[in-house]
Order: sequence, then C-alpha cells, then structure tokens
Amino acid sequence: MMKFHGTMTINQHDHLSIGGCDAVELIREFGSPLYVMDEELIRLNCRAFHKAFIEGFPGGEVAYACKAFSCLAMMRIACQEDLGVDVVSAGELYTALAAGVDPARIDFNGNNKTPEELRYALQSGIGRIIVDNFTEIARLDAMAGEMKLKPKALLRIQPGIDAHTHKHIQTGKVDSKFGLAIGTGQALEAVKMMGEAANIELRGIHCHIGSQILGIDTFTRTAEIMAGFMAEVRGSLGLTLPELNLGGGYGIYYTHEDSPSPPEAIAEAIGKVLAGAFKRNDFPFPERFSVEPGRSIVGNAGTALYTVGSVKHIPGFRTYVAVDGGMTDNPRLALYQAKYETCLANKMSAPDEIVASVAGKLCESGDMLIRDVSMPRAEAGDVLAIPNSGAYQYAMASNYNRIGKPAVVLVSGGDASLILRRETLEDLIRYDLVPGHLK
Amino acid sequence: MMKFHGTMTINQHDHLSIGGCDAVELIREFGSPLYVMDEELIRLNCRAFHKAFIEGFPGGEVAYACKAFSCLAMMRIACQEDLGVDVVSAGELYTALAAGVDPARIDFNGNNKTPEELRYALQSGIGRIIVDNFTEIARLDAMAGEMKLKPKALLRIQPGIDAHTHKHIQTGKVDSKFGLAIGTGQALEAVKMMGEAANIELRGIHCHIGSQILGIDTFTRTAEIMAGFMAEVRGSLGLTLPELNLGGGYGIYYTHEDSPSPPEAIAEAIGKVLAGAFKRNDFPFPERFSVEPGRSIVGNAGTALYTVGSVKHIPGFRTYVAVDGGMTDNPRLALYQAKYETCLANKMSAPDEIVASVAGKLCESGDMLIRDVSMPRAEAGDVLAIPNSGAYQYAMASNYNRIGKPAVVLVSGGDASLILRRETLEDLIRYDLVPGHLK
Repeated sequence: MMKFHGTMTINQHDHLSIGGCDAVELIREFGSPLYVMDEELIRLNCRAFHKAFIEGFPGGEVAYACKAFSCLAMMRIACQEDLGVDVVSAGELYTALAAGVDPARIDFNGNNKTPEELRYALQSGIGRIIVDNFTEIARLDAMAGEMKLKPKALLRIQPGIDAHTHKHIQTGKVDSKFGLAIGTGQALEAVKMMGEAANIELRGIHCHIGSQILGIDTFTRTAEIMAGFMAEVRGSLGLTLPELNLGGGYGIYYTHEDSPSPPEAIAEAIGKVLAGAFKRNDFPFPERFSVEPGRSIVGNAGTALYTVGSVKHIPGFRTYVAVDGGMTDNPRLALYQAKYETCLANKMSAPDEIVASVAGKLCESGDMLIRDVSMPRAEAGDVLAIPNSGAYQYAMASNYNRIGKPAVVLVSGGDASLILRRETLEDLIRYDLVPGHLK
Repeated sequence: MMKFHGTMTINQHDHLSIGGCDAVELIREFGSPLYVMDEELIRLNCRAFHKAFIEGFPGGEVAYACKAFSCLAMMRIACQEDLGVDVVSAGELYTALAAGVDPARIDFNGNNKTPEELRYALQSGIGRIIVDNFTEIARLDAMAGEMKLKPKALLRIQPGIDAHTHKHIQTGKVDSKFGLAIGTGQALEAVKMMGEAANIELRGIHCHIGSQILGIDTFTRTAEIMAGFMAEVRGSLGLTLPELNLGGGYGIYYTHEDSPSPPEAIAEAIGKVLAGAFKRNDFPFPERFSVEPGRSIVGNAGTALYTVGSVKHIPGFRTYVAVDGGMTDNPRLALYQAKYETCLANKMSAPDEIVASVAGKLCESGDMLIRDVSMPRAEAGDVLAIPNSGAYQYAMASNYNRIGKPAVVLVSGGDASLILRRETLEDLIRYDLVPGHLK
C-alpha cells in the first residue's frame, strides 16, 4: 500500500487527487509524463525547517539546496517562505537571481567552481562562498583583490564521517573530492591560509556529509566534530570563527524501509550537542548557524505521473509494466538502486494484486523505474503515479534517446499552474548546426 | 600511455591535435568543456561497416543507431556514407527526417513506443517498425488499419543470450523488458499474431543482445539461434520470413583491457555461421540482413576536452584532479563503472607520473570521470582530454546542478565547425514559468 503525502486524497472518481486536482485530468490537460508538485506540502516543509533551524537557533539560517529541484517558481516559494538558497553553479545562481532571491542569502558551494563562476558570484554580491580547496583559496583571494572586494567565505571541511547511505552520495569521508579533512591536518592549514588571505573575510566552516541520511546520530556526531574543530582552530591559530554551516542530507520517506526524523527533532538533537560541545570548550555559540536542506523540502511534495503503454508478463520470470518516461526523467534507480512505491491514479481502490517491475521506454536495460513493487493489475492507458519524486529527478533529467523533458505543474487549492513547460521536438534540435560541407 | 585514434597527433606546440586542429586552441575558440568529433574517423568507421555488412551480404543493410550520438550533422554524415538510421523515439525520428534521411532507411526500435510515436512513424513512411510486444502488435494493427496503411515490421526477439557486459546494457536475456523470448514460446505466438494481423506486413525478426560486447562468439551464437528460430517459424507456421536484423552492440576500445574485433571479422564470422545454419535448415538466406552499430561508429571518434580547475592531494589516500565538466556530460562511470584513458592536451610529452582520479564539478560524490588512472602531473589550467568519448556521453547529457550542455565541434583537415552549440544561462531557464500568485 502506498503512503499518502501532503494534500493527496482519493476523489469521487476513484482517482488520485493532489492539491485538489485530479491526477488523470492533469495528464489530459498537460500531457504525459507529468511531474506534479504539491505547493502546500512544499510550504509546510519550508516552514518546518524555518521553525526548527531559523527560529530555533540564535542566528539560525536555512538555505534551500536548489540542486534538488531548481526553477524560477521554486525559488520564488523559497523566497516567500523566508529561506535562503544554496547554489552550486552559475546556472543555479542565475536562476536564483532571476527569481529575485536576496544575494546576501545565497551560498555558493562546489568542489570546482570555474573562475567565471567565482567572478559571477563576486559580482552578484552573494552572501557566502564555501571555499573547497587550496587552489580556490588562492584564486578567490586574487580575484577579490583585483575586484577590490572582500567576500565572506566559509571553508568546506571533511569531518571524516562515514554516513550510512549510498556510496555515490556519501560526502563526509576523508577520501572525498569535497573539502579538506581535519584528520590529515589540511583543514587547519587551509583555515590558516584563508585567515591570512588579504581579500577574504573568513567567517567559519562548512560540511556536508551525504544525502538521504535517516539517522539523527550521524548529524550529531558531525556537529560534535565541527564544534571541536572550531575550538582547535582557536587553540592553534587564535581565530574564533563566528559561523558554522552543517549542510544538508536529511533523508525522506521513499518506502516503508525509511523512517526519517522530523526537522524539529534533528534541530533539537543538534542544538543540544552543539550547546554541550561549545560549553565544554568555553567557545561562544556561533553568530550564524546554517543548514542546507534540499530533498527534505521538495522530495515528498513531487509525484511523477506516467501513462502505461504495455504490460509484459514473462512466465516464470517477471511482469514488466512499461511507462512513457524512464531514466531520462528519473535516473535514480540506475544510479543509486533507489526504491519507490506506486499506485494507479485512475483506479485508486484497486488492491495490490501483483508484484511487477516498472520499466521506462528507453533503449537500455538499466532504464527501470521500480523493481519488484506491489501494485494493482495494470493495463495500457492506466496512469501510474510514483510519489516522492520531487527531488533529484526533474533536476537530473537528460535528453538521452532525444526524449524531451516532461512538464512540471504546481498544484494548490484545485488550481494547476505550469512551472516548467514540456520540451518539444523543435526544442530538441535547437542547438544543432549543420556545417556547409554537410548540407 | 593513452592510445591514439583516427587523426590524433602531437603538434609542434606539444599539444594534442585532432583533425588538424590544436585541442588547446579549440578550447580557446569554443570554450570548455568541449566535445571534439573527428570527421575522418567517423567516416572510416561508417565505411568499414558499409564494406563489411552492406557490400558483404546480399541485401545487407547498416542502420546507424543514433542513440549513441544524435544531431543533424551526424545524421548528414550517415546519409553521405550511405547508411540507414535506427531511431528509438519521436525526437530521434524528427532529427533524422530534418537532416534528410530517407524514411525508407529508418528503423524504429523501442520497448514502449507511445501511440503518438507510432502514428508519427506511420505518417513518415519509415522503413521498418520493430515491434516489441503483444500490446504493440494490436496497437500497430489497429492504427495502420485506421490510416489505411500496411507498414513493414519486424518482431523483437529475445534469443536468451547472456552477453558478457554490464548488467545495465545486457538486453538479450529472457528476463528483459525488450522483446519476446523464444524459450517461453511467446516469440512464436507473437510471430503468429503479427503474421495474421491484417494491417501489418511481417517481414522478419530482430534482436539486440547488449552493448559494448567484445567477443565475436556472442554474435555468432545469437546468429545461430535467430536462424534456427526462422526455421522453427517456417516449420510451425509455414511462414518463410525474408528479413533478419541482429541489432548492434559492437564493443570499442576504451582501455588496454578492451580488444574489439574489426567489423570485417565480425561480419565474416556471422556470415559463415548464418550460411551454415540456413543451409542446414534448407532455408533461403534472408533478402535483407541488417545490423545497427552505434558506439562503434562514433565512440572512438569523440574526445572530451576539459579544463583542470584544481588538484587535491589527500596524503595517504588519493589525488583528485577536478575538471569543469562531469556526470552532466558523461554519466558513464556513475552508471556503468566505465573506464577511460586520459592525457593532458597542452603537454603531450609529459610522462605519466601519478595515479589520480578525475573528478567532475558537480555536488555529488558519484560525479567522477575516471578512477585511478595513470597520467602526467596536472595543475589548474591544464587541458585534460578523454578519448573514446563520442558515444553515450553528449547523448546522455543532463542539466543536473543547472549546468549547461557543452558544445560539440566537428574537426577535419584543420577546420573546426560547431555542430552543437553550448547551452547558455538564458537557455537554462527557457522552460521556466512563474504563476501569478508567486510573482
């Protein structure tokens, strides 16, 4: 049985309804496949993080990690809900600025920002640059000097935490492309270098230990280590850093195997550990304390709707339910062996009767959406819904097989608004050029 | 040491040269990262397949599997080299038609073509529809009847072959989303259904057993099974099918671990096995015999050029060389644990001195391009080249982290022509819409 989220209900036609909109009608109006974002649930998620981390901490800040789902409309919602934004590329920064996000509330993360991106960030006057490595310290210092600026910056630290999540999305181990490790001594060395840089205002330290992390203890252990390192920095270098950013990684529910903790519980546990650690070290609580939730803001608010094209039963093996999307709009199974629940949005009261695998339409065996899921008997024309599709799906969409990106609608109070229009055939050849000798 | 392909040489500036163009100059002119396609090598690959399979067989046909790399310019080259084209989506069909490919030489593959795609294919009068399953047989029959057409079609067969390649790209096993298996009896049942369909001209059978297959024996075993099945069809149903399509899957060189066979050797071996099998069964050699190479046409003709942003040495662990692209333009390591060689295009005579891992710029640990590769000492500003990047890289490119797709240039005889322009910041928000209540 599929878990319901946010405004999901079953309406009088036995159809799935989200934000007061009939999912089957949405497909008719906007086409298939379609991503549906539940505005009310996005706002509830934003408010839960605002309450837990902005109101719950002195100098608390929440920056929406827009890599989970980035578009103008989503940036507007983050603004309206009084969240900052964490960007990781010129494209995300451009989108945030175009949506009117206050530059002072934008953080720029990334292991290898290009010189052009750094310059763009400096010109835009964004709030914090999260510096990743020695080369970047020197580059930022030189560039800011030329531009006669002194940007606020944090240093990305490797706390050496082995988060229990997929290896592709673990980012807190010493052997990582991100940041500099405490254990190797490089983190302290880099803090010293940044502290001495003439054109950088070193404000503090940052870390991010991975994604889809469900246990609170991973976050509290990280908090403890980071607080300890701030004390070590003071002890070794005489610098009392005023800012701490613990990144994101808060897990969400995908299937019954996942029991995520609510933001208030995570905030309370982290707050307690930090208070204790800073007190023990006689270190002042940071003036600014930030987190960067992404998936936990949008993940459970998104539902992917597909149309079933065929059902293939291979006697003795497996039943494949093939839909009109696939790894082009959701590569998470192919990349991370992700799991999902599903339902048929046009026959919600039909009981789960089969175990089937949901296949995409791409010419590749790895193009699967769900393996071995309990679901009702499906047939061509059914509308198959996959909830918990709001994060890292549209955001990762490709044009493999020259398949266009789907449309995304925002639903609320019975209204549906297109926030990302569907890619057309004409769009797909828009970058193509034919040199004279090939004409 | 990196293997050279096609027109690659080292020029007087100690730079990598492809198609007579200096790789470092290409980056200066067209920006970074940049994909460079060697036109001469693409044409040599086309000609090798033409010679082996079109000239080498009575009724031989080669359809370029454009999912490997699809754009107007590449379709033009396939036309000029007298190849057909294998498409798997409306987008690929649209591109092929826009490039002037003869519809009669287009095959349409796919496990779940949408009704709109099928209609578009029928309207376009394409050569062959490769039908995948029972639902599609009924759908095609009904649609063709309504349109008063009788399209030529092949049936996708599962020969039950376990190809030795990555599980994501194995497609010949019974438990597969593609086609219908001989072993379960479903293939024969479907041939019967197609043969009896009033509005389908059943021409033969098709299979495709996977990708990046290096051993010839996998292809010959498949040919044997398919020839045997054609005899079985005649024996059981009295149908002498005149066409056989064995798909693609021909592997290429990525590293010294790969020893691909040349097309002529594969064609010769397949031809011998088919001749023997058909003779044994007293079955006429097919009037039309097709293959669908993709990777083996463009793979080794493409080189990805990146600019190094930083080099991070983690004492006791690993050295990360970070470049300005990543899984957005090449997800093959993340998806298939793919391996590559590399070189520094601006210092070709520098010896391999380190073992390093090439990281992308995306905010994800899985965003790696090469793990543990021998290479020269790198520093920020170096141009890092990854050869054998012509297939399934640009074609799979995404906008994850809102990173724009790179540009692609075609080089030949000292000239470089843009064939896919770079995606700009403005392009990245072109589908975004902001509903009134969010303004």
